[in-house]
Amino acid sequence: MKLGTVKGSIVSTRKCSKLVGYKLLLIEPYYGDSKEIFVAADRLGAGEGEIVLITTDYSVQASLEQETPIDALVVGIVDHPPVK
Amino acid sequence: MKLGTVKGSIVSTRKCSKLVGYKLLLIEPYYGDSKEIFVAADRLGAGEGEIVLITTDYSVQASLEQETPIDALVVGIVDHPPVK
Amino acid sequence: MKLGTVKGSIVSTRKCSKLVGYKLLLIEPYYGDSKEIFVAADRLGAGEGEIVLITTDYSVQASLEQETPIDALVVGIVDHPPVK
Amino acid sequence: MKLGTVKGSIVSTRKCSKLVGYKLLLIEPYYGDSKEIFVAADRLGAGEGEIVLITTDYSVQASLEQETPIDALVVGIVDHPPVK
Amino acid sequence: MKLGTVKGSIVSTRKCSKLVGYKLLLIEPYYGDSKEIFVAADRLGAGEGEIVLITTDYSVQASLEQETPIDALVVGIVDHPPVK
Repeated sequence: MKLGTVKGSIVSTRKCSKLVGYKLLLIEPYYGDSKEIFVAADRLGAGEGEIVLITTDYSVQASLEQETPIDALVVGIVDHPPVK
Repeated sequence: MKLGTVKGSIVSTRKCSKLVGYKLLLIEPYYGDSKEIFVAADRLGAGEGEIVLITTDYSVQASLEQETPIDALVVGIVDHPPVK
Repeated sequence: MKLGTVKGSIVSTRKCSKLVGYKLLLIEPYYGDSKEIFVAADRLGAGEGEIVLITTDYSVQASLEQETPIDALVVGIVDHPPVK
Repeated sequence: MKLGTVKGSIVSTRKCSKLVGYKLLLIEPYYGDSKEIFVAADRLGAGEGEIVLITTDYSVQASLEQETPIDALVVGIVDHPPVK
Repeated sequence: MKLGTVKGSIVSTRKCSKLVGYKLLLIEPYYGDSKEIFVAADRLGAGEGEIVLITTDYSVQASLEQETPIDALVVGIVDHPPVK
């Protein structure tokens, strides 16, 4: 899994219907190249500036009720920022 | 998921029959190295210059009626370009 | 999907029996770092110098009759080289 | 699989319920860019400073009793550090 | 798939029981950054210095009798080193 910082969110009106109900967060990698911002779906209610744990690829589906075209999902909000 | 800008499309006459019906878009990464252009399939009708949300790998299949050899799919068109 | 140029092929006599019947092509990435050459299986008959479309990971299996340990497959031959 | 060194662990109180019971380790890559720290789940009891073998993506699920949103798992603790 | 050179092997006494019976090889990428050494499981008997073909992620499972937490597997030994 990856750690990232929530930088904001995006809005997409024209989208795959299975994505309705997920907040789409912009995530800045906590380690490594911070310019490699990506999008993760969230249902835990992570707020801007919080550090989150993100699962990617196939394993995302294990958290969902039905298969959804999401390849990065917030699966935890980290209590304390780890040492860089 | 990744954000990318639609730069154009490609045509492939000799291709796997399951790819028929998908537009194959050239996508420039919105964040990170913009030279790492890749191809994503599209059925949402994204136009050149639009910023799109792309799902990759296994999770792509959750959007399709039958399993198809597509590893990157446009799943949303972003309303407003996010801050770089 | 990725675009790549066919640079040649490899021969492997001692290999997993499920790979028999596939040509194993050396592919140079068309965009990004051209030194990151990889191997893709091919049944479309792509020739040296042609530009091909390659699907990776799980989605490869959607093109095959039986599950095969192939993680990169030529799924199309591109008609005209796109702009770099 | 990747080799990594255990640097510590993270705590996440608000998390996906399926992650309960796994220790979440911070892993520094043993080869390559050591700044690309990531998180792997552990049930083998790896301690700080130990070198571990990590499996990623789909194949992680083969080690678990039920599908869990984990994309990196400690599957071995290495006896002796290999040559760098 | 990737090409790599066998550099040696690792031993892990405390490991997931499903990994018993596989040799765990240290693989140096043949193309690209040779410092990005990784571990691949082997049952073909590849020897040190040989160049091998490696399949990754989901597709590895197609070569195995039961699902195993292996994300990189030697699926072929290359007859002649290709041009760099």
